Amino acid sequence: MKKSVTILGAGLVGSLWSVILAKRGYEVQIYERRPDMRKQSISAGKSINLAMSNRGWKAIELAGLKEDIEQIAIPMTGRFLHQKDGSSAFQAYGKNGEAIYSVSRGELNKKLMDLAEKNGVKIHFEHKCTDVNLQTNTVTLEDRDGQAEKITAELLFGADGAHSALRQAYTLIDRVNSSRHYISCGYKELFIPAGPGHTFLMEKNALHIWPRGQYMMIALANFDGSFTCTLFFPFEGDPSFESLDTDDKIRAFFEEEFGDAVALMPTLLEDYKRNPVGSLITTRIDQYAFQDKSCLIGDAAHAIVPFYGQGMNAGFEDCTILAQLMDTCEEDWSRIFERFNRIRPANGQAVADLALENFIEMRDKVADPKFLERKKIEKELGKMFPEYYNSVYEMVSFTQTPYAEALAAIQAQDALLARIMENGDFYERLEQEDYRAQLERWLQAYSSDLEQTIAAIEK
Amino acid sequence: MKKSVTILGAGLVGSLWSVILAKRGYEVQIYERRPDMRKQSISAGKSINLAMSNRGWKAIELAGLKEDIEQIAIPMTGRFLHQKDGSSAFQAYGKNGEAIYSVSRGELNKKLMDLAEKNGVKIHFEHKCTDVNLQTNTVTLEDRDGQAEKITAELLFGADGAHSALRQAYTLIDRVNSSRHYISCGYKELFIPAGPGHTFLMEKNALHIWPRGQYMMIALANFDGSFTCTLFFPFEGDPSFESLDTDDKIRAFFEEEFGDAVALMPTLLEDYKRNPVGSLITTRIDQYAFQDKSCLIGDAAHAIVPFYGQGMNAGFEDCTILAQLMDTCEEDWSRIFERFNRIRPANGQAVADLALENFIEMRDKVADPKFLERKKIEKELGKMFPEYYNSVYEMVSFTQTPYAEALAAIQAQDALLARIMENGDFYERLEQEDYRAQLERWLQAYSSDLEQTIAAIEK
Repeated sequence: MKKSVTILGAGLVGSLWSVILAKRGYEVQIYERRPDMRKQSISAGKSINLAMSNRGWKAIELAGLKEDIEQIAIPMTGRFLHQKDGSSAFQAYGKNGEAIYSVSRGELNKKLMDLAEKNGVKIHFEHKCTDVNLQTNTVTLEDRDGQAEKITAELLFGADGAHSALRQAYTLIDRVNSSRHYISCGYKELFIPAGPGHTFLMEKNALHIWPRGQYMMIALANFDGSFTCTLFFPFEGDPSFESLDTDDKIRAFFEEEFGDAVALMPTLLEDYKRNPVGSLITTRIDQYAFQDKSCLIGDAAHAIVPFYGQGMNAGFEDCTILAQLMDTCEEDWSRIFERFNRIRPANGQAVADLALENFIEMRDKVADPKFLERKKIEKELGKMFPEYYNSVYEMVSFTQTPYAEALAAIQAQDALLARIMENGDFYERLEQEDYRAQLERWLQAYSSDLEQTIAAIEK
Repeated sequence: MKKSVTILGAGLVGSLWSVILAKRGYEVQIYERRPDMRKQSISAGKSINLAMSNRGWKAIELAGLKEDIEQIAIPMTGRFLHQKDGSSAFQAYGKNGEAIYSVSRGELNKKLMDLAEKNGVKIHFEHKCTDVNLQTNTVTLEDRDGQAEKITAELLFGADGAHSALRQAYTLIDRVNSSRHYISCGYKELFIPAGPGHTFLMEKNALHIWPRGQYMMIALANFDGSFTCTLFFPFEGDPSFESLDTDDKIRAFFEEEFGDAVALMPTLLEDYKRNPVGSLITTRIDQYAFQDKSCLIGDAAHAIVPFYGQGMNAGFEDCTILAQLMDTCEEDWSRIFERFNRIRPANGQAVADLALENFIEMRDKVADPKFLERKKIEKELGKMFPEYYNSVYEMVSFTQTPYAEALAAIQAQDALLARIMENGDFYERLEQEDYRAQLERWLQAYSSDLEQTIAAIEK
C-alpha cells in the first residue's frame, strides 16, 4: 500500500509535487493557507514574472505540463542592458541561442492547481499550518475562523514557503544549523503597458536591466504586450525607498536614472505609491528531511533572492530529484529521504550563494565594458572547447549540473578568464598560430582543477 | 497602574528578572516548561557550574541576593593549566587578583525561585509555551497533560532559553535576521570527588584547563570539595565521542591525554558512559523587543557557547540594563523596549563572537608559551598605564564595558602586543631609560585608535 501524502502549501512547488505523486498513484491532500487564487484576482503589485529555465522545464515535463506551459512562456535569449546615458546593449545568455522563459507566476500556479485536482489531489484552502510535531507527524491546522484541527500525516511535505511551519520545527532539531537573512534592498513592482494592438514597446525576447550600481530595475515581457518592471532598491539611505518621499523626488529620480523607461510608464507615480515594498530573504537550513516522515521542498528548504531566476527552478528540481530517488530507492521513503538529505542541502546553500552573487553582477558588473568583453570571450571558449568550458551562467540555467559544482566553478573561471584577458586582445591573439594550443592547455588545466574541486565537494 | 507581567521560563534569567520586577511593584506570573526543580533531583550529568563575574554580581546585587550567593560561590583567580607532559602553570585573570566565581547552576536557580515566590511571584510549572501571537500578545501554553490554554499578556518576557517560543515568533517578523549555529564539539560532564574530609584534591581557587588543541577538559570546584569536569570534544572524527566506542579506547585516551586528572577520577568510565553528550549552540537575532508588548532576555535573545563564562552574566546584564531603562524612561515600556532594542542586540552578537573566539584560546592558545608571555606583559601594561590599558578578558569579566567594545578591542590589542613582543625581551627593554616613554606613546596611539573604533560602532 502506498502511503498517503500530506503537502503543506499549494504554491508552485507544492502543486507540482502533488501532480507527480498523484500520477504515481499516491493519494494526496494539500493544505493551503490562502484562499483559492483561481476565484480571486491576484493582489496588486505582487503579480511577478518568473524565469523558467532548464531545471524548471525538466520538472514540468515530468508532470506532463510542458506543452501547456509553452503556450504562456516568452523566451528571453539574453539581457538587454539600458545604460544611464540612454545607450543599450544586448548580451546573449547562451552560446547557442538558449533562452530562459518569462512565465506569469499566477497563471502557472493556476494551471498546476487545475492539473492537481484533475489527478485527484484534494486542495484544502484557507487552512494554515501553525505547528508540526516531528515525532508524531501531527500537523496543527487553523481554518479561516481560527478553529484548530490536528491531523496526523503518513508522509508530510513542507512546500509552505520561506516562513514554513515545518521548517520552523526543523530549526529546533538538535545540531541543525539554520539562518534567515534579509538583504538591505527591497523591491517594488512597476508597469510598462502594451503599445497599440498588444504590441511590445521594447524588445520582447530579452530580460531588460537598468543596472545602476547599488540598485537596478528589470523588466520581463507579459503575453499581452505589457512588461512587468521590478525596482530593486535600498530600504534606507540615499537614494532609497525611504528617501523618495515626495512625488517630485520620485519623478526626478526616475527621470534621472531610468529616462528611457519613464517615457513608457504613464502610471509610474500611481504604481510607485500604490504598490508595496517587498523584502528579500535568504533562508538556509542543513537538514531537509526527517526520518521516513517529512521533507522540506522549495522555498521552505531554500528561499533565495530572485537574482538568478532560480527560486522556482530550484524548487522544481527538488521534485525531479525526489522522483528520481523514488525510482532508485523503490519508493522506500526512509532511503529516499536519507539520500535527499545527504545530497540536496549543499546545493540549496550553493544556489543561495549564486543568487546573492548575481545581484552584484546584475546591478553593477553588467554595466562594465570589461565584463561584457569577458562574457563574449566565454562564449567563444565554449564554442571552441565545448568539452572543457561552459560558463557558470550556462551551467545554472541550461543544464542540471548540481548548483554546488556551478558555485565551485566561479573561482576557477575567474582565474582562467583573468589569465586570458591580461594576455592582450583575445581576438587578435586568436589569429596567432600557437595561441589556440596555449588556450587548450589552459582550459585543460582549468578543467582538471575543477574536477578535483568537485570531487572534494562530493566527498 | 503598573502593567501585569508574564515571563516565559523560570531559569536563572527569568527568575532573577521576576524578582527585580516584583520588588518594583509589578505583579508577575512565570510559566515554566519543567517541573519544580526544588522538588526533584537534578538530572545526572547536567549539574553544570557557572562562572559568575562582574556583570552577574551587578544584577544579583540589584535583586538583593548578593550575600546569599556569596555563601555558595568559590572565587577563581586564574586559570590552572594542565599540560600533557604533566607540568602545570597558573595564569591570573586580573592584574589585581580579581576573581570569577564558581557557582552551582542548580543552587543558584533554586535560591532565585525561592526569592521570587517570597516577593509574590507566581510560578506555574509544567506549562510549556508552544506559540505566541505577537500582535495580540496571546500565549498558547500546554500543561503536563497536553491541555492547551491561551492567555493574553500585558507585558511579555521570553526568558525561555535557546529554543524560546517567543524567539521563534520573532524570527518570522519581516526583515528580522536570525541564525542558529552549532559548533562541531559537544560536551560531557565528568567528576573528580572530594578527598578525605571534603578536602580539594586540586587547587580550589582556579579554573582548571587541560588544553589539547582541538579539544579540552575543564574543571570547576564545588563547595563539598569535589570538582565538576567538562570534556569539550568533537562529535565526529578521530578522536571524538564517536571514535571512543569501547572501554579500552576511552581509558587509553584519557590516560594519554589527561593522565594527572585520571588519577583523581575513580568513576571515569562509569561517568563517561552514563552521562549524555550535550551540543553547543550560538543563536543570533537582531530584534530583541516588539512594540510595547514583548521582549527577549537571556539565552532566548543570545544563546552562546560557554567558553567565556558569559552566558548567565550576559543574561543577568539584560536585566540590569532593562532596570536602568525603567528608571531613565520612567517605566514607559514603549520607550524602554525601543532603547533596549537599539543598544542590546549588537552586544548580544559581540558576546557570541567573544565566546566562540575564547574556545580557540582555551583549548589551544593557552598551551603556547608565547601566549602566556603575552598575558604577563598585558598585566604589566595594565599596571603601568591603567588609564590606557585593560585586557579584553578584564573588560569582559571585571567591568561592564559593552561587549561590542571589548570585541572591537581584540584587534587593536593584538596589534599593540605584536608590536611590543617583536621588539625584543620586554623586561630587559623595560630597564632602558627611554622605553617607558616609547611604550606610553604606543599605548596612547592604541587607546585613541580604539576610541575612534568605538565611536564608529556607537554611531
